[in-house]
Amino acid sequence: MDRVKVTLPDKDYEILIGDGAINLACLKDKPFETKKILVLTDENVAKLHINKIKKVIRSKHYYEYIIKSGEEQKSLINFEKILEFMLTHQFDRESLIIALGGGVIGDLGGFVASCYQRGIGVFQIPTTLLAQVDSSVGGKTAVNHSLGKNMIGTFHQPLEVICDISLLETLPKREFLSGIAEIIKYGVIGDLNFFCWLEENIDLLLNRNHLALKYAIKRSCENKRDIVSEDEKEQGKRALLNFGHTFAHAIENLTSYNTWLHGEAVSIGMCMAAELSNNLGMINQQSNTRLKNLLAKSGLPTRSDSTFNVDEFITVMSLDKKNTNGQINLILLDALGKAVKKSNTPKNMISEVIKSY
Amino acid sequence: MDRVKVTLPDKDYEILIGDGAINLACLKDKPFETKKILVLTDENVAKLHINKIKKVIRSKHYYEYIIKSGEEQKSLINFEKILEFMLTHQFDRESLIIALGGGVIGDLGGFVASCYQRGIGVFQIPTTLLAQVDSSVGGKTAVNHSLGKNMIGTFHQPLEVICDISLLETLPKREFLSGIAEIIKYGVIGDLNFFCWLEENIDLLLNRNHLALKYAIKRSCENKRDIVSEDEKEQGKRALLNFGHTFAHAIENLTSYNTWLHGEAVSIGMCMAAELSNNLGMINQQSNTRLKNLLAKSGLPTRSDSTFNVDEFITVMSLDKKNTNGQINLILLDALGKAVKKSNTPKNMISEVIKSY
Repeated sequence: MDRVKVTLPDKDYEILIGDGAINLACLKDKPFETKKILVLTDENVAKLHINKIKKVIRSKHYYEYIIKSGEEQKSLINFEKILEFMLTHQFDRESLIIALGGGVIGDLGGFVASCYQRGIGVFQIPTTLLAQVDSSVGGKTAVNHSLGKNMIGTFHQPLEVICDISLLETLPKREFLSGIAEIIKYGVIGDLNFFCWLEENIDLLLNRNHLALKYAIKRSCENKRDIVSEDEKEQGKRALLNFGHTFAHAIENLTSYNTWLHGEAVSIGMCMAAELSNNLGMINQQSNTRLKNLLAKSGLPTRSDSTFNVDEFITVMSLDKKNTNGQINLILLDALGKAVKKSNTPKNMISEVIKSY
Repeated sequence: MDRVKVTLPDKDYEILIGDGAINLACLKDKPFETKKILVLTDENVAKLHINKIKKVIRSKHYYEYIIKSGEEQKSLINFEKILEFMLTHQFDRESLIIALGGGVIGDLGGFVASCYQRGIGVFQIPTTLLAQVDSSVGGKTAVNHSLGKNMIGTFHQPLEVICDISLLETLPKREFLSGIAEIIKYGVIGDLNFFCWLEENIDLLLNRNHLALKYAIKRSCENKRDIVSEDEKEQGKRALLNFGHTFAHAIENLTSYNTWLHGEAVSIGMCMAAELSNNLGMINQQSNTRLKNLLAKSGLPTRSDSTFNVDEFITVMSLDKKNTNGQINLILLDALGKAVKKSNTPKNMISEVIKSY
């Protein structure tokens, strides 16, 4: 089993990556006997995986809380309901949450853990590729609001992240590809060697070869770890992880979160951000094409096929959390493997890209 | 103006204490021009003090959010409403909250700040003595739940705490005394010299002599700072600040938060905890009497005058956040100036004290 150690000012933790990591991570050997454990998951994941967790945890006080599946479940309403459930069952500060699922479960479970009695421990067990390489790492927690995605949340680092590759076997293809988009992102923003490796090994990855997957997940987690360790609370460098995301969030928002999966929207958003970088004379056309080709070869969308109202699109973009002082801050590319934050992109240049996608 | 510096692993900030500190603290010289500022306060405080704040802040984007007064306003409902207000007005991560009020405003404003876009800055300007010496310092934020007080919240340190003694002139007597109870607590739990100073100077304090007040506030903040610096997230020593509070929370809960002010309940709770300590052979009778005399001389209640159902009382106590593994953890006294945490107090001893108060 591989381990990626995350070191932060007031907390260290490990990301465990392996085939059957749930067992290998020895959840069963942890001193849970005296603690109350809440396994938070959704209906789909519960059917596939919850018994594996239940089997390995030795706890007298084992509870399950199962929500419906879907992004709309990442809500303040569920946040309140779960807190009430825990209060009713007299969870204390030693109690733990195990967030078993994709990004929705990880973000919601993390947010609940950070606010229950001012913070309890949470284990992240991501069951999607996207969550394994991205959302479960770095301590971001959130719920959505009708006025914007992830607008309410905290930073709350997990006790441990357990990436079990065998859980990915049952992942639907679109969801799997959604994770591939975020993996490609790490290459694009800061790791040209990894990008080249992806160009060469994309077929292995798409076939879910375990060795290739393990390598790609580890490399992604290391990339994210390096950035998060430097900037836990997103005051600077961490914003680079949002490459493609400002466009993606607007696309998701304007299609009511029911057309594209997050990684698909990120794929389109990365193409838009790369195109804009090219139009601004930053990245060259060849690099731009390499990114689009890799995404297309992966089976990811490279354009939205929707006609967006440009003003509306920009209004939604202007709600992005990276923005300050009324300016839209974007992550753009100086080169493949080198993302930068820009705060003064002319709105007409942004409009032009929105129109052409 | 006096300054108490708080040093924490990932953040330092100052508590400013002075007569007219709002002006002296130079809020007007802070670089607020480009930031959105939300002043959160309640109806009572707004009438008395909001114009003083408005006058000194130079900001193009000044907003006020005024809630009703009262503990029941420290709710998830208000939490949501304020977040929605900020989203509607496109507050960003550089925006700031100024929490102007007592503990309700400080806790609610701090919780909103900690969750808005994963955390923005908050200035605490406490307007009650209790908030100046206790709730505004240390970064605890919270809202209440019907199943328990302060059950939902975070740790989120303020950018600065500004204790303006002149704001206390208009404070109703009961509220003022409520703060005196917490001041006495600092002497009792860890600072015998301060306790003796309070015995000698209580009349000056009760007359709201500014010099005496300034000294007592500073000494209280220093005491709290010393404990919080050692244990920001209440894993150990910080629990000592809860002396009297486990009883107090139960008293407040069982009287529906409408009979006693928090400090009054703490005063009764401290008497109960001291009596229990005495019954357990920890503190001697003389020290026990000194504490009760000082509280009584201050005009604070030293018994509840209610007949509580003992089982119900203990059930509510067992919901306290300090508890772990189903045991009631109490802060008791080894001596005046020396509080300790105990986890194995026999329930019949606790019952006996509840009955006699």
